[in-house]
Amino acid sequence: MSFKKYVYFFGSGKADGKANMKNLLGGKGANIAEMTNLGMAVPAGFTISTDACMAYYDNDKKYPPGLWDELQKNLLKLEDTMSMKFGDSNDPLLLSVRSGARVSMPGMMDTVLNLGLNDRTVKALAAKSNNDRFAYDSYRRFIMMFGDVVLEIKRENFEDLLKKKKEEKKVKSDNHLSADDLKELVDRYKAIVKNKKGFDFPEDPQEQLKMAINAVFDSWNNKRAITYRKLNGISGDWGTAVNVQSMVFGNMGDTSATGVAFTRDPSTGEKKFCGEYLINAQGEDVVAGIRTGKPILDLKKEMPEAYDTLESIYQKLENHYKDMQDIEFTIQDKKLYMLQTRSGKRTAAAAVRTAVEMVKEGLIDKKTALLRVNPEQLGQMLHRIIDPKAKLAVLAEGLPASPGAGVGQVVFTSEHAEKLAEQNQDVILVRLETSPEDIGGMDAAQGILTVRGGMASHAALVARGMGKCCVAGCSDIQIDDKNQTFTVNGAVINEGEFITLDGSSGRVIKGKAPLIKPELPENFFEFMSWADQVRRLKVRANAETTDDASKARKFGAEGIGLCRTEHMFFDKGRIKAVREMILAETEEARKKALDKIIPMQKGDFKEIFKVMSGLPVTIRLLDPPLHEFLPHTKEDIKELARDMGVSEEVLSDKSRSLKEMNPMLGHRGCRLGITYPEIYEMQVRAIIEAAIELTKENEKVIPEIMIPLIGHVNELTFLKERVNKVAEAVMNEKGNKIEYSVGTMIELPRAALTADKIAVEAEFFSFGTNDLTQTCYGFSRDDTGNFLLDYFKKNILEKDPFVSIDQEGIGELIKIGVKKGRKAKSDLKIGICGEHGGEPLSVEFCHRIGLDYVSCSPYRVVIAKLAAAHAVLKESKSSKHKIRI
Amino acid sequence: MSFKKYVYFFGSGKADGKANMKNLLGGKGANIAEMTNLGMAVPAGFTISTDACMAYYDNDKKYPPGLWDELQKNLLKLEDTMSMKFGDSNDPLLLSVRSGARVSMPGMMDTVLNLGLNDRTVKALAAKSNNDRFAYDSYRRFIMMFGDVVLEIKRENFEDLLKKKKEEKKVKSDNHLSADDLKELVDRYKAIVKNKKGFDFPEDPQEQLKMAINAVFDSWNNKRAITYRKLNGISGDWGTAVNVQSMVFGNMGDTSATGVAFTRDPSTGEKKFCGEYLINAQGEDVVAGIRTGKPILDLKKEMPEAYDTLESIYQKLENHYKDMQDIEFTIQDKKLYMLQTRSGKRTAAAAVRTAVEMVKEGLIDKKTALLRVNPEQLGQMLHRIIDPKAKLAVLAEGLPASPGAGVGQVVFTSEHAEKLAEQNQDVILVRLETSPEDIGGMDAAQGILTVRGGMASHAALVARGMGKCCVAGCSDIQIDDKNQTFTVNGAVINEGEFITLDGSSGRVIKGKAPLIKPELPENFFEFMSWADQVRRLKVRANAETTDDASKARKFGAEGIGLCRTEHMFFDKGRIKAVREMILAETEEARKKALDKIIPMQKGDFKEIFKVMSGLPVTIRLLDPPLHEFLPHTKEDIKELARDMGVSEEVLSDKSRSLKEMNPMLGHRGCRLGITYPEIYEMQVRAIIEAAIELTKENEKVIPEIMIPLIGHVNELTFLKERVNKVAEAVMNEKGNKIEYSVGTMIELPRAALTADKIAVEAEFFSFGTNDLTQTCYGFSRDDTGNFLLDYFKKNILEKDPFVSIDQEGIGELIKIGVKKGRKAKSDLKIGICGEHGGEPLSVEFCHRIGLDYVSCSPYRVVIAKLAAAHAVLKESKSSKHKIRI
Repeated sequence: MSFKKYVYFFGSGKADGKANMKNLLGGKGANIAEMTNLGMAVPAGFTISTDACMAYYDNDKKYPPGLWDELQKNLLKLEDTMSMKFGDSNDPLLLSVRSGARVSMPGMMDTVLNLGLNDRTVKALAAKSNNDRFAYDSYRRFIMMFGDVVLEIKRENFEDLLKKKKEEKKVKSDNHLSADDLKELVDRYKAIVKNKKGFDFPEDPQEQLKMAINAVFDSWNNKRAITYRKLNGISGDWGTAVNVQSMVFGNMGDTSATGVAFTRDPSTGEKKFCGEYLINAQGEDVVAGIRTGKPILDLKKEMPEAYDTLESIYQKLENHYKDMQDIEFTIQDKKLYMLQTRSGKRTAAAAVRTAVEMVKEGLIDKKTALLRVNPEQLGQMLHRIIDPKAKLAVLAEGLPASPGAGVGQVVFTSEHAEKLAEQNQDVILVRLETSPEDIGGMDAAQGILTVRGGMASHAALVARGMGKCCVAGCSDIQIDDKNQTFTVNGAVINEGEFITLDGSSGRVIKGKAPLIKPELPENFFEFMSWADQVRRLKVRANAETTDDASKARKFGAEGIGLCRTEHMFFDKGRIKAVREMILAETEEARKKALDKIIPMQKGDFKEIFKVMSGLPVTIRLLDPPLHEFLPHTKEDIKELARDMGVSEEVLSDKSRSLKEMNPMLGHRGCRLGITYPEIYEMQVRAIIEAAIELTKENEKVIPEIMIPLIGHVNELTFLKERVNKVAEAVMNEKGNKIEYSVGTMIELPRAALTADKIAVEAEFFSFGTNDLTQTCYGFSRDDTGNFLLDYFKKNILEKDPFVSIDQEGIGELIKIGVKKGRKAKSDLKIGICGEHGGEPLSVEFCHRIGLDYVSCSPYRVVIAKLAAAHAVLKESKSSKHKIRI
Repeated sequence: MSFKKYVYFFGSGKADGKANMKNLLGGKGANIAEMTNLGMAVPAGFTISTDACMAYYDNDKKYPPGLWDELQKNLLKLEDTMSMKFGDSNDPLLLSVRSGARVSMPGMMDTVLNLGLNDRTVKALAAKSNNDRFAYDSYRRFIMMFGDVVLEIKRENFEDLLKKKKEEKKVKSDNHLSADDLKELVDRYKAIVKNKKGFDFPEDPQEQLKMAINAVFDSWNNKRAITYRKLNGISGDWGTAVNVQSMVFGNMGDTSATGVAFTRDPSTGEKKFCGEYLINAQGEDVVAGIRTGKPILDLKKEMPEAYDTLESIYQKLENHYKDMQDIEFTIQDKKLYMLQTRSGKRTAAAAVRTAVEMVKEGLIDKKTALLRVNPEQLGQMLHRIIDPKAKLAVLAEGLPASPGAGVGQVVFTSEHAEKLAEQNQDVILVRLETSPEDIGGMDAAQGILTVRGGMASHAALVARGMGKCCVAGCSDIQIDDKNQTFTVNGAVINEGEFITLDGSSGRVIKGKAPLIKPELPENFFEFMSWADQVRRLKVRANAETTDDASKARKFGAEGIGLCRTEHMFFDKGRIKAVREMILAETEEARKKALDKIIPMQKGDFKEIFKVMSGLPVTIRLLDPPLHEFLPHTKEDIKELARDMGVSEEVLSDKSRSLKEMNPMLGHRGCRLGITYPEIYEMQVRAIIEAAIELTKENEKVIPEIMIPLIGHVNELTFLKERVNKVAEAVMNEKGNKIEYSVGTMIELPRAALTADKIAVEAEFFSFGTNDLTQTCYGFSRDDTGNFLLDYFKKNILEKDPFVSIDQEGIGELIKIGVKKGRKAKSDLKIGICGEHGGEPLSVEFCHRIGLDYVSCSPYRVVIAKLAAAHAVLKESKSSKHKIRI
């Protein structure tokens, strides 16, 4: 009877597997096979495939037919190769057992070394090595590792005994414990096992092996592993492989060692060999940091032969894999053995530098270089981060709403933030939630912390636009307005106390954490130019200030995809006129107030047009409900009433009458434009006048007028007619014609569903994926904080749909909108301007469904560009379509 | 050269047209032709077709080629037939010119009589009739009508002069003015024309004719007509016909008369000839009510011959048209002429009675009988209405949010409403808007008036469910809380003053208007049984009280499609336990509070199940955000804090922390069920226990557990598992198995878009079209008041999407949901339970797309049933599929 092959042997310079068999052998197994085939010294062994793992689960956690026999056959072959016998009383073969999934996965069982030792074989090991200390050191390590990862006895139990022993013996390092000390430790370790588990430590090497393999299989479906997979989109069907390998010993004395190294510097990308090693130690000591390792270059002096071999091997590996490698090795009595090689984890800066330099070295081509850098990771280089070495007192975790880090004194109001900022003091603005009134305070602060609101709340959106860190929806915090403090998980933080925010992780930290400034690697823009050559999708920025627009242009934005005009209304010098406009009782009074605003709006537009000269600028007409502009506190109302010469009562009444139950679904967007046409008319006049004046100064202005919140084509027809009428009038007055276009946001499900009708009137579409997510999912971006965290915990949702487009639902709607829109107008320009425009998975989706551009906050432009390039490269991979750079 | 035929002659017992040519000749023209062909005495004339009208518009408001000549030819033929000449100085032919569109349309130009009169022909008329008074009476009438409808001089100008003349002459009736008086009036009338228009009254009969015809054509596109068409879905391309007919005179003396009559009683449907007539008058006098007519039966004595002819004609017409006819006639010197016949407008009661009786008489079949009654109209019979004869002081108009009428004293709080109601006083509850806390007050009131909110606002939905009248979104009202008054268009109404609401028209009326009680016609249920035999769509009711459920069952509901459990939580005896539940800080405390609620919920369910024994009852688990249950006023918070032994601060904090920016898109529906699973578990336990206990009492209980606001299938999977677990547990405890099903509402766009995934888990779908309209359109039902009226005025929307399903947008989404749902599960039961379920156009839509049932408020069940039958009959008409009753 023949069974499926589950076990893959490697040894004596030949392996059943190879590097491209990662899915079957796991990353570790495939690379061990590859190194064996490359003729490197790798301890012989075999890999039990991921298929075996899945067959184990399919077979009710029993081995599938044939597996045990195949395993024994391979064990015999290994004994042959090594000329040793597993469990032998004279020359026992010892094994390491390690898990190895397709991708490295925290939460999985890791490593058991020295398997095969027992009271009998340990004596043989001592005799053969003529080193009692080594043998018992290996034995106590084995019991601890097996106890920890197979028997699930907490590691601290063993470590406490080791510590106690060192105290008894008054030695600092375990290296200084004698063979007898270690022998006694072995006994104590075994007693723990008996005590905790109720059975004796298994003496039978075969039983040890089976238990270790099962523990690896079982760890595939432990809770941590499942959670990790959910979070990272890894399928539960992949399974893990198990690597069983003959032991080599770094703890055989001072001519033995163990170490890890990188072929290039993983922080900077510099081409230099880095790493560390420990003399007389086993692998786990390096990783666990029990002893401090020596720099890898010292090895050259201490063991020149081994180092030379290592040097040639690491160069060979990098050339072979054409990528920076992270390697593990052991030196047993001066002889070097390779235990693992894999692509090394690196910072964004290192990723960019390595990729560019490898192209120059001829190792890889530009396409490969592009794929080597994770777009999301680029964000690291653009913002300050907390020094990873710093010890932090984390108070709470909220949503990582805008990346970067900030340190400052706690303040609770925007006014206060602005006042202190004027005195050059750093502040963190802490609010229940923010509103457009807080723009000034947010701008003044080093970071924003809110109690409520999700990843697309006002605070999150504005902070991201400003490139400022923000932690949102931190519901553990209770703000006490009266006492000007906040409490969080028991602690009380006063106004004026320093805190640090980590907007990339959502952490709120007590005190001043040390920050590291962002720095772009030298060859960053060269790298980005390759992305520009590859991508099809254009990338614009969302920006409404000259600062933002300039930043966007610096990062290579190809225009502005969303210029929100309402933010211009909150400026201190203008808000009064805006309020007059809102409180006007007649059209005439409203027009009078608008006449005051128009020169200011025109000025804004001129500045932005100038910065973006030659590139399109999409200006969205007024969108938010009017009551957002009104004063809310009693004092503010009093002041405004005095200024405007109306009674406070009238003002409060008006403010109350504008208040809505669900403002997100209320009187806003184009609905304002329809009930108060004079507002949009003012804005259009400002746009066209600005454009004409700049055109006369020989700037190239490409204005796109965007009407928000269209649900029915009639709304667009009504407004477009008025926009064109005003534009015509202004052009006639000025005696100058300019080109402009009128389009719409598609941000309501109904707009997407009737896109064929709307496209007849629109010259472009821009999907407002924030609002589309809100309405399609029925999630208020400001209120999801109350339940979304619970959704993630309960595995109901994997990702926040405000961060990455929900492709299954909202994506379906977008596809309908694109299809219907293009059916009616085949050359319709279509983009998106929600925050999703800067998120790699969403960008890839936009590419796939054929959008023309994405628009995102200035800081995310480079991320979007790289993601757009990746989208092309991934597509060409699957379609075999050739891309040339 | 031959042209298209535009003019259709009738006279001497023969007509070019016939009854089925309504589209071409208009209703009036087609019926005149038909009566001519039936051999009835109809004054000869011709009809200018609707095609001519459209050709006139297509030709830039000029006559199309050939029309004028054809018209002259027909005029000659008419002169021949009548042996008179148009404009002749001896025997002048006089004409009436009347509009006549395919359907009767208010706003169109109506009638010009006596056309052809001028200073010359009037003398001939006088000579020939030997009746000066008659001739000048006809002349002054002609000038007034022509001045009014052709020259657009306000009618009052002429009526004032007539009134003045009567005062001068000290006579009461215009009948008592002499020929000389009338001659003088003619001069004064002409002076008005000259004064207002700047030209002399046209003397040339041909010019008069052309001007009158053009006036009819032009009136097709006047503002009122356009608005009417928009509101009633009439195409602007239909055009109107023009009927030109030789005059007969009811004002030739005491042997002449004019009248209108119905072949059956239009109020009750009783089979008796009704109507009225005026001696010595022209048609308009009857219609305008200038003089009071005599009952038609008096004619039998006054003019027995004419009456006999009329009697045989009306019977002949009813038999011919097989429908109740509304006829116009004129008696000229004892000879009867028929001027018009058409289907008579009737009340709902008359419509039902007539339809049923005509079936019994063998006049029509049951299918025709069903189509004779407008489903929407049925509502009239179910609610009190304001006596149509009453004179009303209308204060303002709001949205007609729930039909019927109510009279009561104004109160501003629900507590006050309840208190007065206990003292048997009638009240009208006036609120800015209502919330679930107002349920008690709404129940106690005779009607509800709100300042804000649309057709699907809380007030509207609840009032409709209660069958109580409601006027919503009456934004002209300002409530002054301090003084307990409201002002409306200048008037101040104090608390305690009586007002009347007309929820069918939206009118708010000062004082007590007389109301008429609703009464079902005897044969109503027989009529409905025919509808039941025809329709495919099942009709259920939305009900959550025993009262409502009983009402629903009486009206023939086939189950409950939506039982909202939250309304049960507001009961005075329960709200305390509910609040305890919400304020609980731990799961245990929450469970303890829920344990208090469970017996109450179980009791509710038992009652409803009992009423609905044998029919399915769909129970929706808790839906609204929790903060709706918390007290909002300071006093209430104080009281609750005292009762619960917590501080007011804790209570306000909790209440504030539950407050959301957009509660409609917030923490509600299944999201509550996921974060607080114990709430749904309590409800499921109550349902299953109730069902088991009743099953033991031999009631047949069919519970359907409905989970609201599902957006992602994972939500349903998560909750369904828990529902089933609780149900299993209860059944095990009680040792009794019952059948139940678990389904979901589809009320978010994402749910419809991913219906294929959701259907795998759901046993039924129920479209929540209110929420679907809110999210798909981005319209908050509570906030649309601010702009929807403006949308209608500006012709952006024709219909309120909360009243009739927006088939283009929301309908598209529903179709996607149905298609995807059935693709995954072909026998999936699908219904709707939004308010649209009782609106005829929406019901027809639901039928067309293949839903299984609609569910609506109990009062609309019969409307929905008839609409569902109509849907089948209309479908079979177009598909030729035979329906048998």
